[in-house]
Amino acid sequence: MTTTQAFSSIDKASGDTLSPISVPDRLLLGPGPSNSHPNVLKALALQPVGHLDPFYIQLMAEVQDLLRTAWQTKNRLTLPMSGTGSAAMEATIANIVEPEDTVLVGIKGYFGHRLADMASRYKANVKTIEKRWGEAFSLNELEIALKEIKPSVLALVHAETSTGVCQPMDGIGDLCRKYNCLLILDTVTSLGGVPLLIDEWKIDLAYSCSQKGLSCPPGLGPFTMNERAEEKLNNRQGKVPNWYLDVSLLNKYWGSDRVYHHTAPVNMNFGMREALRLLLEEGLEASWNRHRSNAEALWQGLENLGLKLHVDARFRLPTLTTVQIPEGVDGKAFSSHLLNNHGIEIGGGLGSLGGKVWRIGLMGYNSKMENVNKILEIFKTELSKFQS
Amino acid sequence: MTTTQAFSSIDKASGDTLSPISVPDRLLLGPGPSNSHPNVLKALALQPVGHLDPFYIQLMAEVQDLLRTAWQTKNRLTLPMSGTGSAAMEATIANIVEPEDTVLVGIKGYFGHRLADMASRYKANVKTIEKRWGEAFSLNELEIALKEIKPSVLALVHAETSTGVCQPMDGIGDLCRKYNCLLILDTVTSLGGVPLLIDEWKIDLAYSCSQKGLSCPPGLGPFTMNERAEEKLNNRQGKVPNWYLDVSLLNKYWGSDRVYHHTAPVNMNFGMREALRLLLEEGLEASWNRHRSNAEALWQGLENLGLKLHVDARFRLPTLTTVQIPEGVDGKAFSSHLLNNHGIEIGGGLGSLGGKVWRIGLMGYNSKMENVNKILEIFKTELSKFQS
Repeated sequence: MTTTQAFSSIDKASGDTLSPISVPDRLLLGPGPSNSHPNVLKALALQPVGHLDPFYIQLMAEVQDLLRTAWQTKNRLTLPMSGTGSAAMEATIANIVEPEDTVLVGIKGYFGHRLADMASRYKANVKTIEKRWGEAFSLNELEIALKEIKPSVLALVHAETSTGVCQPMDGIGDLCRKYNCLLILDTVTSLGGVPLLIDEWKIDLAYSCSQKGLSCPPGLGPFTMNERAEEKLNNRQGKVPNWYLDVSLLNKYWGSDRVYHHTAPVNMNFGMREALRLLLEEGLEASWNRHRSNAEALWQGLENLGLKLHVDARFRLPTLTTVQIPEGVDGKAFSSHLLNNHGIEIGGGLGSLGGKVWRIGLMGYNSKMENVNKILEIFKTELSKFQS
Repeated sequence: MTTTQAFSSIDKASGDTLSPISVPDRLLLGPGPSNSHPNVLKALALQPVGHLDPFYIQLMAEVQDLLRTAWQTKNRLTLPMSGTGSAAMEATIANIVEPEDTVLVGIKGYFGHRLADMASRYKANVKTIEKRWGEAFSLNELEIALKEIKPSVLALVHAETSTGVCQPMDGIGDLCRKYNCLLILDTVTSLGGVPLLIDEWKIDLAYSCSQKGLSCPPGLGPFTMNERAEEKLNNRQGKVPNWYLDVSLLNKYWGSDRVYHHTAPVNMNFGMREALRLLLEEGLEASWNRHRSNAEALWQGLENLGLKLHVDARFRLPTLTTVQIPEGVDGKAFSSHLLNNHGIEIGGGLGSLGGKVWRIGLMGYNSKMENVNKILEIFKTELSKFQS
């Protein structure tokens, strides 16, 4: 046997000249990711264990329990998908939508469009109702649509990250049961930061992300589905047309069988366990109230500076605030200034709000008065320099 | 406005009683994950930056360049999928398989079956050829199948983690061009640890993972496709039936446009950048030779103890060794003993090798003589206690 081999043609294009990683300090006050809790980062940096190690199996059960509490659900099928929030979004569609199913998507921002695109890839008969970006649906508008369209699935976004709107949920779950359809809810920008009661609101499937209200880096997509949704999955004609996100397979790994499906992102789940533990140590209500009071301070402060908020106070999302860029101000130049000279990230507008708003996030670990005061002070003293 | 709200029904089921995370020390000598390089773990624990931050955009380009070198490819479409290796596996299928395409899968272990299952979910006309678990395909066997079946895609596993076989690749790429089919190669257990030359071998699509030869925790799935594969993607009749893994969308984010697709797992990519940089700092050939010489020491040592290796020396994989469990030995009891009393993980057999072999991995950071000696010493002194 040869113990060394020579590969004369090996291309050394890169790598041997690159320095070790050095990351700039950023205060992330945009639409996400938010900064992570330092304890979560410490958990990420632990040496991995095997994905079938008894220790890890126990940790998986803890993550599931913590997630159930954070979402206020008893759903057995509650687990973090091994991908980002978008993977978890796709998992809700992939598992319960069959070809020709009518899926109604309530679109009031960027992420509604994404849901519609995804549903079409799973061959759904996609129907949409739309609201102006910055508004929410009324119960009446939804009932009219459900009555007329008779979908088997209604997909809505609870917290629209593109607009800063929080959809009031009172009565929507009951409507969906009345019209015999499943309700999918996007809780990417609400989980941990905004009141969210999956079971009480009769949400059938929901998904979220790790990097906003949970103060963990991006990389996991919390997912939950109840027994109504599971029944639809169990009665499918064919296999779920997505292997990686197939809950019937994932259930064998995350459920009691522990059958190997894919190698879990072990370290991200270490982080998720700590993130959820810290959230519940603070207390869900305490966290919701903290997000709300810090957001109110931000709103008041911005209005005191003469700035206009894009969303009516009734529908404003505590985790993400859309601020109208005043006429004559170069919004992009101001954001770049914040990033380059203060290390602070805020977001710009997406889609129809492009160039019209800034998006300021106060999420998870970053929802604190110190950050509110810092960003208000910069708006107060430096925004005028960007006025033409 | 209310600044505090009371939610009387909040369920406090878990969280407030859980202790901070504490992970047992493990030496991971199984089929993966392997232990991570300490510098990679440090990179994971850095505070995230935004996924559209100019710093991160630069880092993405670095990761892509490093990955191209590690894979020895100039493929533009080379990027880590935001999921584990199985997601990257699915990405190869999802992007280039259209309904009714004939996909030929060479099955010689567990992961061949997975490829066949995935291809069927994308409505391929799936054909398979099989070899006993522990063998490799000959060029002649592949040519006969290509000639007869005329597939548009051939999918093979380079390094079969379930059997410890390394498929010789000489001439297979040429055959696929002769018979006008695309070649998908699973390099999950070879990237970084075993000679692998994507362009020279004329591989059209390949995928891998982060947690083996790259010494990074699990969570990212390196993916690459060349222009031949891209042409098939561009000529699809319909959209890719998987939104999250759609390379035509991902290309706009990872390519020059930098259009937002999904929020990248920023910290995992910090880790991946360091993992790849460290691999190329050592040098690809040096790493391949290190894996080979440590594996040879393990093989020799096991044979000196009278143990039999499952795979013929010609096809043996340096990263993963299958050892036959001697008659009368309770293989599972010995593995549990290793884990519980020495903190060492080795794997058991999968599928048709269940109960018949142990799987010992020497991958990435863990491929060192110190580990070879440690595991051999325990086999030498303690295995006899598990003989009935």
